[in-house]
Amino acid sequence: MQNHDVMKTKLIRCFVLLICLFMAVRQTAAAPGDALPSWNDTAPKKAIVAFVEKVTKDGSPEFVPVPERIAVFDNDGTLWAEQPTYFQIQFALDRVTALAPQHPEWKTTEPFNHLVAGNTKAFMAGGEKSLMAVMAATHAGMTTEEFSKTVSDWIATAKHPKLGRLYTDLVYQPMLELLAYLRAYGFKTFIVSGGGIEFMRPWAERIYGIPPEQVVGSSLKLKFEMRDGKPVLLKLPEVNLIDDKEDKPVGIQLHIGRRPIAAFGNSDGDLQMLQWTTAGSGARFALIVHHTDAKREWDYDRKSPVGHLDKAWDEAITKGWTVVSMKDDWKRIFPFH
Amino acid sequence: MQNHDVMKTKLIRCFVLLICLFMAVRQTAAAPGDALPSWNDTAPKKAIVAFVEKVTKDGSPEFVPVPERIAVFDNDGTLWAEQPTYFQIQFALDRVTALAPQHPEWKTTEPFNHLVAGNTKAFMAGGEKSLMAVMAATHAGMTTEEFSKTVSDWIATAKHPKLGRLYTDLVYQPMLELLAYLRAYGFKTFIVSGGGIEFMRPWAERIYGIPPEQVVGSSLKLKFEMRDGKPVLLKLPEVNLIDDKEDKPVGIQLHIGRRPIAAFGNSDGDLQMLQWTTAGSGARFALIVHHTDAKREWDYDRKSPVGHLDKAWDEAITKGWTVVSMKDDWKRIFPFH
Repeated sequence: MQNHDVMKTKLIRCFVLLICLFMAVRQTAAAPGDALPSWNDTAPKKAIVAFVEKVTKDGSPEFVPVPERIAVFDNDGTLWAEQPTYFQIQFALDRVTALAPQHPEWKTTEPFNHLVAGNTKAFMAGGEKSLMAVMAATHAGMTTEEFSKTVSDWIATAKHPKLGRLYTDLVYQPMLELLAYLRAYGFKTFIVSGGGIEFMRPWAERIYGIPPEQVVGSSLKLKFEMRDGKPVLLKLPEVNLIDDKEDKPVGIQLHIGRRPIAAFGNSDGDLQMLQWTTAGSGARFALIVHHTDAKREWDYDRKSPVGHLDKAWDEAITKGWTVVSMKDDWKRIFPFH
Repeated sequence: MQNHDVMKTKLIRCFVLLICLFMAVRQTAAAPGDALPSWNDTAPKKAIVAFVEKVTKDGSPEFVPVPERIAVFDNDGTLWAEQPTYFQIQFALDRVTALAPQHPEWKTTEPFNHLVAGNTKAFMAGGEKSLMAVMAATHAGMTTEEFSKTVSDWIATAKHPKLGRLYTDLVYQPMLELLAYLRAYGFKTFIVSGGGIEFMRPWAERIYGIPPEQVVGSSLKLKFEMRDGKPVLLKLPEVNLIDDKEDKPVGIQLHIGRRPIAAFGNSDGDLQMLQWTTAGSGARFALIVHHTDAKREWDYDRKSPVGHLDKAWDEAITKGWTVVSMKDDWKRIFPFH
């Protein structure tokens, strides 16, 4: 019995100590200067911290229970760069080059002939139709596992044509910190991107800490088949969902089934996701990354074909959403900066 | 300085104690008799415990990291009952009755006229076509939020015609324990059902502890619209995915994007999900719930139109999958038993 009492006292002392320790650690984590070191101490950072505090603090009138703390992030231009063109398009073009020896017919078939001949200008003149043909030839007609391996191999070595860096180096350091910060406060972070769901999943967990089941994106139809007694899923050249614009809320509802309380984007393709998120009841947060830094990254908005930011910008101003100026609000852009 | 050392010693002692406590708690949790009390100590329970131990024990040659511990569960007939017909069909029929006053034209429109007149037999004679018309009339043409509220209202009060119990009482106690047991060992549990994704989500979290983003099911196409300046998602009378048979692995890939290591089903509708799960490398687990208890539940398999178990049963035997006989392997069936 005496032994038991000693044990009990020790345990109580131990728990008290641990609680103090836990609170100390928690206060450190909550200190805004620590959690988001690559953000300048300007309005966007303050707005993020204020939002997170009010929805996570016990007793706050706008407290949100953990399971409802859903945050959605666009990928291209929000979590990583997107110039001079979406990296997935570069992947598709690289695949055409790699596959050309197995497709002698491409030498004389539009639009592949232009790419094989290295005439990017003639290819680009074909517009969306040419692009869709290349996407179908490089993203369909194989199993999900074959495609996943192709993406993993490419992303491990392919480099940005201008910056000479791995594409996965071109992620935004402030956004990596923001993802971690939100998760530390019980948020579940999702990607909701117009990019391919199967293109992002092979590396999103390693780079962003976002597991495959929390990646929402554009998808092709799949077909279950038996091959030599083993089941495979074949990627068909048929669109299942283009997870962009009006269909971003559709993708969110299909995959998540719960309205996010925070959404992060950078272009008009994200407008409806931001509208859908902020139209829910209770505290909501919407943020737009505005590319204003020609020196460290790129400078573009209303007139850019890639990352076109026009209506969403106007609506952000009207509705008081947070707009990040990369030049003014971010200390660092890329992890290697 | 002295104070610091005392503090340090206390902290170290405290951590050692906590580690002991943690290991003690862990061993208790691992005792099979505690975690699955509604399971008899027969082969299925032993197989479940053996599988969980070998994939979660540090240093085990078949250890699986936490993020890859994905377990998928069929719903109808696996997590809750499904006789005399899928509960979602009962929901649709109840909706026709509730909506009939707003649809005077139904009195003279096939197949609604039979339901309005209470002639279930004539309605059933219309087969799948009649059923699809009823599903479209009761599941589409409204917003996702309106539908969710309708489901929540119905499930809170509707009772099983024969057992006189709420449908959410007709869940299998052994499976509730299994879900909790797997989660305690770091598994992420998903529903993968032929039932409607929007039909299950409003109550799956409360009943099964499975959040909306971990519910995979059949879905209709959705349309984003602005109504009086507020965004809504309209449910269209057009199928997006029937998450059954060959399309269960498709639903898994689209929503989860990672191959499960354990799958639980009860009918031929689950066969491809079990094949897909077990075809992955490393340790895999597949289980079929066989309805063998006419006294406490129902007794059906090869000849049943609902919960048809034929090919999946044969394959389970050939491949050594675990088959649960509800009569022999489950101490309790429902929580109220």
